[in-house]
Amino acid sequence: MPLAKIRIKMHLIQVINPNTSVNITNVIQKAACAVAFAGTKIIAVSPCQGISSIEGHFDEAIATMCVLEQIKQGKERGVHGHIIACFGDPGLLAAREFADGPVIGIAEAAMHIASLIATRFSIITTLPRTFNIIRNLLQRYGFISQCVALHAINMPVLSLEDDSVYQKVYELCLKVKQKDGSGAIVLGCSGMANLASKLTKVLGVPVIDGVSSAVKLVESVLSLGISTSKHGDLAYPLPKKITGYFEALN
Amino acid sequence: MPLAKIRIKMHLIQVINPNTSVNITNVIQKAACAVAFAGTKIIAVSPCQGISSIEGHFDEAIATMCVLEQIKQGKERGVHGHIIACFGDPGLLAAREFADGPVIGIAEAAMHIASLIATRFSIITTLPRTFNIIRNLLQRYGFISQCVALHAINMPVLSLEDDSVYQKVYELCLKVKQKDGSGAIVLGCSGMANLASKLTKVLGVPVIDGVSSAVKLVESVLSLGISTSKHGDLAYPLPKKITGYFEALN
Amino acid sequence: MPLAKIRIKMHLIQVINPNTSVNITNVIQKAACAVAFAGTKIIAVSPCQGISSIEGHFDEAIATMCVLEQIKQGKERGVHGHIIACFGDPGLLAAREFADGPVIGIAEAAMHIASLIATRFSIITTLPRTFNIIRNLLQRYGFISQCVALHAINMPVLSLEDDSVYQKVYELCLKVKQKDGSGAIVLGCSGMANLASKLTKVLGVPVIDGVSSAVKLVESVLSLGISTSKHGDLAYPLPKKITGYFEALN
Amino acid sequence: MPLAKIRIKMHLIQVINPNTSVNITNVIQKAACAVAFAGTKIIAVSPCQGISSIEGHFDEAIATMCVLEQIKQGKERGVHGHIIACFGDPGLLAAREFADGPVIGIAEAAMHIASLIATRFSIITTLPRTFNIIRNLLQRYGFISQCVALHAINMPVLSLEDDSVYQKVYELCLKVKQKDGSGAIVLGCSGMANLASKLTKVLGVPVIDGVSSAVKLVESVLSLGISTSKHGDLAYPLPKKITGYFEALN
Amino acid sequence: MPLAKIRIKMHLIQVINPNTSVNITNVIQKAACAVAFAGTKIIAVSPCQGISSIEGHFDEAIATMCVLEQIKQGKERGVHGHIIACFGDPGLLAAREFADGPVIGIAEAAMHIASLIATRFSIITTLPRTFNIIRNLLQRYGFISQCVALHAINMPVLSLEDDSVYQKVYELCLKVKQKDGSGAIVLGCSGMANLASKLTKVLGVPVIDGVSSAVKLVESVLSLGISTSKHGDLAYPLPKKITGYFEALN
Amino acid sequence: MPLAKIRIKMHLIQVINPNTSVNITNVIQKAACAVAFAGTKIIAVSPCQGISSIEGHFDEAIATMCVLEQIKQGKERGVHGHIIACFGDPGLLAAREFADGPVIGIAEAAMHIASLIATRFSIITTLPRTFNIIRNLLQRYGFISQCVALHAINMPVLSLEDDSVYQKVYELCLKVKQKDGSGAIVLGCSGMANLASKLTKVLGVPVIDGVSSAVKLVESVLSLGISTSKHGDLAYPLPKKITGYFEALN
Repeated sequence: MPLAKIRIKMHLIQVINPNTSVNITNVIQKAACAVAFAGTKIIAVSPCQGISSIEGHFDEAIATMCVLEQIKQGKERGVHGHIIACFGDPGLLAAREFADGPVIGIAEAAMHIASLIATRFSIITTLPRTFNIIRNLLQRYGFISQCVALHAINMPVLSLEDDSVYQKVYELCLKVKQKDGSGAIVLGCSGMANLASKLTKVLGVPVIDGVSSAVKLVESVLSLGISTSKHGDLAYPLPKKITGYFEALN
Repeated sequence: MPLAKIRIKMHLIQVINPNTSVNITNVIQKAACAVAFAGTKIIAVSPCQGISSIEGHFDEAIATMCVLEQIKQGKERGVHGHIIACFGDPGLLAAREFADGPVIGIAEAAMHIASLIATRFSIITTLPRTFNIIRNLLQRYGFISQCVALHAINMPVLSLEDDSVYQKVYELCLKVKQKDGSGAIVLGCSGMANLASKLTKVLGVPVIDGVSSAVKLVESVLSLGISTSKHGDLAYPLPKKITGYFEALN
Repeated sequence: MPLAKIRIKMHLIQVINPNTSVNITNVIQKAACAVAFAGTKIIAVSPCQGISSIEGHFDEAIATMCVLEQIKQGKERGVHGHIIACFGDPGLLAAREFADGPVIGIAEAAMHIASLIATRFSIITTLPRTFNIIRNLLQRYGFISQCVALHAINMPVLSLEDDSVYQKVYELCLKVKQKDGSGAIVLGCSGMANLASKLTKVLGVPVIDGVSSAVKLVESVLSLGISTSKHGDLAYPLPKKITGYFEALN
Repeated sequence: MPLAKIRIKMHLIQVINPNTSVNITNVIQKAACAVAFAGTKIIAVSPCQGISSIEGHFDEAIATMCVLEQIKQGKERGVHGHIIACFGDPGLLAAREFADGPVIGIAEAAMHIASLIATRFSIITTLPRTFNIIRNLLQRYGFISQCVALHAINMPVLSLEDDSVYQKVYELCLKVKQKDGSGAIVLGCSGMANLASKLTKVLGVPVIDGVSSAVKLVESVLSLGISTSKHGDLAYPLPKKITGYFEALN
Repeated sequence: MPLAKIRIKMHLIQVINPNTSVNITNVIQKAACAVAFAGTKIIAVSPCQGISSIEGHFDEAIATMCVLEQIKQGKERGVHGHIIACFGDPGLLAAREFADGPVIGIAEAAMHIASLIATRFSIITTLPRTFNIIRNLLQRYGFISQCVALHAINMPVLSLEDDSVYQKVYELCLKVKQKDGSGAIVLGCSGMANLASKLTKVLGVPVIDGVSSAVKLVESVLSLGISTSKHGDLAYPLPKKITGYFEALN
Repeated sequence: MPLAKIRIKMHLIQVINPNTSVNITNVIQKAACAVAFAGTKIIAVSPCQGISSIEGHFDEAIATMCVLEQIKQGKERGVHGHIIACFGDPGLLAAREFADGPVIGIAEAAMHIASLIATRFSIITTLPRTFNIIRNLLQRYGFISQCVALHAINMPVLSLEDDSVYQKVYELCLKVKQKDGSGAIVLGCSGMANLASKLTKVLGVPVIDGVSSAVKLVESVLSLGISTSKHGDLAYPLPKKITGYFEALN
């Protein structure tokens, strides 16, 4: 493809890792930068205080607060859009009320992209206990009948740095390709963001990462000159008394 | 009905008001005690620090943390079951992972009870901006096609102490009875808990309050000798590093 | 838990076994009494004339008439609520029209309770030919996507007195626990009512019986001071000419 | 269209009016004969004892027994197929288990035919209290999203002989045609069977009667050389002890 | 069954094979004639130019144009109804807009008939790549939850003349009968039309062919004196400029 | 926002107007170029021969062939991705089988984007007769419960050049904003592409155009280094004999 030399607007996109694991933040940042359009500046952040990984509804509750704190900092920093880089999309709707710019979760992003290139997809995640979180999202987003199956490699998020992970995910993908009858595979954990493009090449099936997908969708919304609707359900939070630790969100 | 004189086991049920409004906590406590079975001791609590009312996804995020903090205190206090007394059931699944005993939300409780006495029901709440929260719950719980319509009195939660509230809710109930073709009406806010029984008598249609409904369902589960399943999706949170403000939840 | 000594209102709950098998009626009565709240008097009944067990739509048609006859007797006897103790909930909506007090089916009761303590459940019943009855109920009640799978021990209802039953059900439960990924198991036959609590202890997974669940839900509705809505769909049957055998229902 | 002179097989189709109203039986018979294929002999029957009209779940329970009694007589009489001529399809699945030949309900018949000639249809029935019965059928049959709306003329079934009925139904049809955006109208009561063809002509919209639709579907199944599957859910009732009034069904 | 000698109206039904394979057209014609009611004249046609078989969305696009061309010729020839004899029902809604008489697809026909004789059915087709087409139809027609499973013999349509086909289909049917728990089997390809009745006898399970099913449904609609609704969604195409190859459709 | 000066890859995106109206093609081209990322070259095309506008299933059948012809030309021309610029997404799945690069329909594009910035949306289109096409897409894509309502301005596509259109659409949007309770409005016709951004500003509600949305989604998929999955449902059409007019597609 030819190269052009042009002037373009710049957009700052804040990619929020809702957990405190810096290693995962680095993985996320690389994945985001790898696909960012020339006019996009990626700012990957994670909370100093919070929970080290997210593998259940309880973990998500804490992660949601961390997301909102990061959204606040992002607003102060003047970012144009936000990404919630955890496959459960913790705090997505709360963040949409709170933020000025668009907010995209990596689970919804991956599901949307998958549904554009295949009639049905499968999802591979870390632990079975997160299946319920994913099923609830599939239901809420409308993709439940487009998802053939949920699979788990049975390794906790924090073990994803482990070298054996690629092999485990690869073998599961191969099984999915042969058995599920689905046309695409979604990687259901931000810690797997670095595996998607290699797996796509090796397997001959599109393997989709939510972080990079979310970058493209935030860019898309920004480029369309729109943002989260403030008319109705997702209007700014009503002003009210917030006290104690949470006061900082005011 | 005759009266019997017997010995019974005692159960402590913690009713959690996820917001900081003490007036609402009092309303909730009265409603809970009014229906509690003789063997039940009601403990109504609310957070000292948090948000003064809950009318959106953002408010719910904060409320969820307050719920978890109260659950922790309840566990330390040895309560047998918990109720989340906000119609959005904030933090319900997180609380189920975290608690030892059963946890019931007042929205689910009201919807379950309504579905046992009518084929379809309508819901009356405070502000239209909470409709999306309620729709998501109806979808997740499976009651979406049993709910005829959502209605709002267009008054914020904190104005519910206002004397004009009963009249507003009554008029809306009357309209629902005549127009919706639903057999029962669910009051979609804990702040309305004190209105249900009076409205039921006046309207000749069951008007259902979630707080009292939840008390009966917690009693039911306890009495059946079961609790939240710890096998699978709702197992205890995995032990992991939690830091800063949230450390208190460890 | 401490013991209290208090005065309480008494409620009469009629538990209807829609088939003529007295052995099953005894099983049902024991299960009902075991969980009944101190203020509840259980009256277990079954028709003198009817069908000996219920394992299909045809059997249910006969059972439905027996249920209505028992409801009539219960009304004359002044009971406060009714339970239909067959897992197909035969005649549930007809009984709700006909009765003054609340009517609960054991299938709906078990499904409601299961959905309060687990995100998804499995059902174990007697014969595969009843699956369609159960699927229709799951659909109508809204629990279809919360039910992971239906399983059958392949033994007819009347063989449930057989000692080998416990072992058969236990082994199937074990398989379900390991394979289905569901958090709770519902026993789909009133004849299994006596197995639930033992299986719960042995398996470490909540195993739910509909009879005891229904007792708690009838108590709940009565205690809330409401009953089946007579506004709309479930109003009393319109007065009309009923002749022959059925005249007795007038 | 030209006329041919040929030899054809004869089929006996039993049209069962589940209520005791002979006037309605006559209406049904006329409607059935009007469309019956040359090789079809229509036998319209109704129970001597039972309920005079069917307008709720309670009425349907009685009607179901009458249907089964008529099915038995039909089998003895050697009919080839059966029609349940009440828009709630009372006892349909029980009758399918019990009968040798195909059994079609007029509600399902009308809905199937409507879905073949229009993308969406509306239903006009007698009383709103039957809406829940119809909704449950739409759900079970799979036509729920093809039904735009349910309407009632607010006249009980037995008043349908009244001359004013045609006008009432006509006016409601006209409103439906202008407002609902549906392509066909289903008449939701066997007592309206005689109105369909006239309304179709006058309104310029297909108005569908279930009785005539059911005749065509029974003829279709018979002509295909198949019948209700006896493999699985709808196999013959298991042999078991039936006593008292119901013994006659053995 | 006795024989009668009578005069009857004649109807011409055009059975359209949307692909150019004359062998398949012959199979279709035989299947259609075998069940046609005495008053029905079957005219089986296929395009001279088009695609030789239909096994995907691309093939269907071409087939759809061929269907419309045949519909036009059928209208000129004065046929009373049309059948689209490809299991994907290509161009069904377009044909309904375009035609004067009723139009039935063989997929919808088979699904409708199956749902009248069994609670759930399975579908056997040629290649897995057509599953998505079938799933979309099941969804659109409302039969998605009545279909237990889709199976493929993994042979392309044009190999169906092969003698080994019957054996392959038989073995798959046998597996379905034993494993799926469905009461009927639908043959998902017009090229299998000649296998249904033999398989029904051999297997003891209704095996349903769409071509013969569609003949009966077209006859049914014609006999009811109605046709595709021209009120709303399926009104005749709006008059507009059509140029080039497609002009012929004007 | 600051400006950067950089080198970027170029992508050619073919925007296909499936109808022959050059005016609409110009509207589409402008809308596409307005949002195209610096590295994207837009090629807007329309068929020389075909149908002048698309307002029904029949029109879509012709449009589908035109889409496939344009896809073929696009492939020969070396474009990287394709957009089907008609709100019915005619031929979408066929085009995905046929093309090498990603293919996006403007209806799906608008629905996906709407669901990222609002919880529910409304759709405004030209004529009510297209509602069924849109409903089928909402169902297939999974957005059916996120769409509050469909509205029509009751003007045919070709009258959209008319100056009065903006006013008509504006007034309908205003009504939707006040009545529907939806957070975003989707313009359901490519001929309205030029109205979206102005309406968004004037109304204070995001008004979404499918053409520009589709440009961003094609860019997104290309930038992610993936394309339509050729594994399974959407694999290239099987090689087979195509004759006559359609041969050109080989």
